[in-house]
Amino acid sequence: MIKTDILIIGAGPTGLFTVFEAGLLKLRCHLIDALPIPGGQCAEIYPKKPIYDIPGFPEVLAGKLTENLLEQGKQFEPGFTLGERAETIDKQEDGSFIVTTNKGTKHHAPVVAIAGGLGSFEPRKPLIENIAFYEGKGVEYFIKDPEVYRGKKVVISGGGDSALDWAIFLADVASEVTLVHRRNEFRGALDSVDRVQELKVLGKINLITPAEVTKLHGEDKIKAVSVTKEGSEQIIETDHFIPLFGLSPKLGPIANWGLEIEKNAIKVDTFDYQTNIPGVYAIGDVNTYPGKLKLILCGFHEATLMCQSAYKIINPGKKYVMKYTTVSGINGFDGSRKEAPKAVVKAIV
Amino acid sequence: MIKTDILIIGAGPTGLFTVFEAGLLKLRCHLIDALPIPGGQCAEIYPKKPIYDIPGFPEVLAGKLTENLLEQGKQFEPGFTLGERAETIDKQEDGSFIVTTNKGTKHHAPVVAIAGGLGSFEPRKPLIENIAFYEGKGVEYFIKDPEVYRGKKVVISGGGDSALDWAIFLADVASEVTLVHRRNEFRGALDSVDRVQELKVLGKINLITPAEVTKLHGEDKIKAVSVTKEGSEQIIETDHFIPLFGLSPKLGPIANWGLEIEKNAIKVDTFDYQTNIPGVYAIGDVNTYPGKLKLILCGFHEATLMCQSAYKIINPGKKYVMKYTTVSGINGFDGSRKEAPKAVVKAIV
Repeated sequence: MIKTDILIIGAGPTGLFTVFEAGLLKLRCHLIDALPIPGGQCAEIYPKKPIYDIPGFPEVLAGKLTENLLEQGKQFEPGFTLGERAETIDKQEDGSFIVTTNKGTKHHAPVVAIAGGLGSFEPRKPLIENIAFYEGKGVEYFIKDPEVYRGKKVVISGGGDSALDWAIFLADVASEVTLVHRRNEFRGALDSVDRVQELKVLGKINLITPAEVTKLHGEDKIKAVSVTKEGSEQIIETDHFIPLFGLSPKLGPIANWGLEIEKNAIKVDTFDYQTNIPGVYAIGDVNTYPGKLKLILCGFHEATLMCQSAYKIINPGKKYVMKYTTVSGINGFDGSRKEAPKAVVKAIV
Repeated sequence: MIKTDILIIGAGPTGLFTVFEAGLLKLRCHLIDALPIPGGQCAEIYPKKPIYDIPGFPEVLAGKLTENLLEQGKQFEPGFTLGERAETIDKQEDGSFIVTTNKGTKHHAPVVAIAGGLGSFEPRKPLIENIAFYEGKGVEYFIKDPEVYRGKKVVISGGGDSALDWAIFLADVASEVTLVHRRNEFRGALDSVDRVQELKVLGKINLITPAEVTKLHGEDKIKAVSVTKEGSEQIIETDHFIPLFGLSPKLGPIANWGLEIEKNAIKVDTFDYQTNIPGVYAIGDVNTYPGKLKLILCGFHEATLMCQSAYKIINPGKKYVMKYTTVSGINGFDGSRKEAPKAVVKAIV
């Protein structure tokens, strides 16, 4: 059982910044995210896209923003349960909560903050008859650890940045990489498209277009796939089939937690962004209230006010007096200290 | 008469970020600030202090944050009335407002956003009998244009960073610099204290401590000051007397605008941060509401929601559909365009 002060569902920018604000109040955080890396949409969907409306950044790449937020919170030592989806919530007699993921990992905390963005990003799955059977048996929708593929045969399908980038990366790791796409045209960064072209010429990527993976073969685990190109089918032996067709957000199991939902978002009070379940908060794009805007900068504000309210639940009867970081500096849980340089007092004689 | 869409009182971080958010909605802004430079407290009180709680910045100097916010908004061409304090507000028959400064500059806008921070920063004035008479006649509490002092005799009093920094700077500009401080000890950056020590030894700064300026002399304008050191008085000829004793915030004339005030702050609704006067908003440290935290990041959120509401006043009946900057980019009023790079669509053959 993982124990923490604030259990955060969602490791996007709002969830990550919560770690920092909670840390200032000496509260510890643990984050659960269905994606295998922190950053949410920013890391997974558009890491190389510039954002222009983060205050103080005339321009910042979404991936860089994620890095900065991780760096900003790191002295408060957040825990992470990644690649797992928060599935159920159970209120305990003492008012605390146990949240269990789809893989059975249990988390216990007095406060739960849902920072779930547009929902958990579920991979778009190709319509192949028996694909569900092979999930975890050679079919993967995310690449968590590229080392798994070392010396193995891999078939990737898809025509966007993910498919291009992983085909390039695995060309040096796997023993054989086949990239299947239903068009000749790829949609991605120019240098990625050019690199795949080169690797094709060098024979390091076996490119089949316009084509689709139409059947999966193998008894216990995947052994081969059928690729259909212009009506004719060929069988390609492989150890892994990785369809990379993008992600689509779903509110998912949270929708069944008994929260008041309006237009696919969780209703909150703007005083502290608490939901209809005391002790459960919703911050960032996942919530709604009059005037709500789904912007990262609004999530930052909501996270900050939420932490003040969470503090009172976690430390009943204690009063927190807000201190400015410019004046008081920051004491990390890891023993680090950040501090503004003090003015020198010195005589001139 | 200066005309704009949103007249912002206060050019601190919240006011500056409003320029950007308003610009996204094609609204123009003009800012009034009592200080001679934009940035508010960040620029004037602690430009060299690191702030640790701006989301996405593990550490940022307050002066750098100001620079970034100016850069972020510059394509929306904000106007500035600096070194003047907003004094009166007059509601017009059509619901718009005319705001007049202490120097008589008039501004006309359908929406007024008070982003006044802790209030306008008024210089702390020394208790010298006839000092008010000499204001504008050789007594200055701010240095707006150092060139005014070229070849002139200057007496500075004070013992903090401003007094040290300006004494150092003017040592190369003025014909004579006298620095008077009531203690031998100065409170400032180490290199500034050391530099004043050097300039004293070189004879470029005439340092008198522990001492105070006790009288001002001159018929139409200042001609000399009396400096009292350990009970004995000397007269020093000078063209300027610059007391730099810091600034203290005062809500000031805004307190008389008919706004609902609670604990020296303006009450607002969290839906859109509007005050009890329709069309007048209050954002950032100057406002109050249940759960309010006086943090820069909260001001950013408030400014953003406020702009949506201001849009409806300025464009009655028109509906604004929010677009993401990552998707739609930014069109500046100056003709500039910022845009995320589009994915290339290219065939691999």
